[in-house]
Amino acid sequence: MLSLLLVDSEIELVPQKIASHTAVRLNARRRKKEASRMLLDATLHHTAMRNLPQAKRRGRPDIIHFFLITALESVLNHKGMLRTYIHTRNDELITVDPSTRLPKNYPRFVGLMESLFIDEAVPLKGQPLLRLSKGYSFERCLEEIPHRRVAAFSQEGKKVGLRGYFRGSEEDILCLIGGFSKGDFNSDVRSRSDDIISIYDEPLTVWTVASEIIVNYENAIDG
Amino acid sequence: MLSLLLVDSEIELVPQKIASHTAVRLNARRRKKEASRMLLDATLHHTAMRNLPQAKRRGRPDIIHFFLITALESVLNHKGMLRTYIHTRNDELITVDPSTRLPKNYPRFVGLMESLFIDEAVPLKGQPLLRLSKGYSFERCLEEIPHRRVAAFSQEGKKVGLRGYFRGSEEDILCLIGGFSKGDFNSDVRSRSDDIISIYDEPLTVWTVASEIIVNYENAIDG
Repeated sequence: MLSLLLVDSEIELVPQKIASHTAVRLNARRRKKEASRMLLDATLHHTAMRNLPQAKRRGRPDIIHFFLITALESVLNHKGMLRTYIHTRNDELITVDPSTRLPKNYPRFVGLMESLFIDEAVPLKGQPLLRLSKGYSFERCLEEIPHRRVAAFSQEGKKVGLRGYFRGSEEDILCLIGGFSKGDFNSDVRSRSDDIISIYDEPLTVWTVASEIIVNYENAIDG
Repeated sequence: MLSLLLVDSEIELVPQKIASHTAVRLNARRRKKEASRMLLDATLHHTAMRNLPQAKRRGRPDIIHFFLITALESVLNHKGMLRTYIHTRNDELITVDPSTRLPKNYPRFVGLMESLFIDEAVPLKGQPLLRLSKGYSFERCLEEIPHRRVAAFSQEGKKVGLRGYFRGSEEDILCLIGGFSKGDFNSDVRSRSDDIISIYDEPLTVWTVASEIIVNYENAIDG
């Protein structure tokens, strides 16, 4: 089994501190929503975000969307060999049922994630496909997710061919990818990883790294 | 070199026939755009689309977005070994410069594609990154794109391990993927393909197939 955990992911509701900023209020009125029940989105709220700590990396639900769509629609996931998790900057853990079919349409995805942040489960009736649990530091996420080996992906890591890496270490490996587009992990990922791996000399997007991991793992278990 | 051609892709401007439908007009007013200068989008225009031929598959710019983001951000593309093309249902050919960084934000992507359909090049000043050429049937696209071998991907094809397939046929291969979520190719893809390949027994999304092709090709040329 392969588990993917997106660490320090830049997805959150609009922080109270900027909920009354003009850019946010106009957007809220247009969407007929309360500002504090909307996802923070750098494209829409960048002027309001200026005074937030780490403003330049926050508010990227689009990244999480691409990552989830890549993981959940993969052959490996169809085969039942993939578990997908999101750890957020505010120490929430989102668990995703492998059978989840997420909306491909971005505004619909945003609406769904807003419901998840408010209700902590989606759908509310029946068995939830997505769950959000609060108070999950990166370290606590590691305790929650079954694994034998932890591999973190970072441009600063050791250059490794993934085909070879996964061959022989197919058993319950947990791969960590940073859920942000700029900067480094906020969590102490290095000290908790067996290997820190780089797959290319230049920065790659989250979903590119996810594809490389997924397809190579799939090939490794296929023998 | 690997070339990817998305065939019969479901991306087009709102057809004249439904431009005055209420659902389309409301959306146009909200976006402050002329209806006929907007992309057809199944999420927004489905009631208006009912009377169009092949209504159930049309209006899926979201699929093209995921495909392009997967291809252009791949390691293979960063290495300069990938060319990406879109053939549309209305026989347009979109060529994409490999250095293109597309907007990750979906509404911004839609705006960019609308400019492309109207102006036939983006950006208008300087060297265009995206070009749209009219009157390109699937057959004419094949003439335009350098290749030695053509592999079409379809669930109806022969089950093939992609690792093995690409090993030994790395030279200028052109892979064809259907740019739609439902149904079959409108173009006569079968008669022009050297191989018709299936990589899984169940339907896969366009970007899943693209990831499998890209990562396995990359592994094959790495030796």
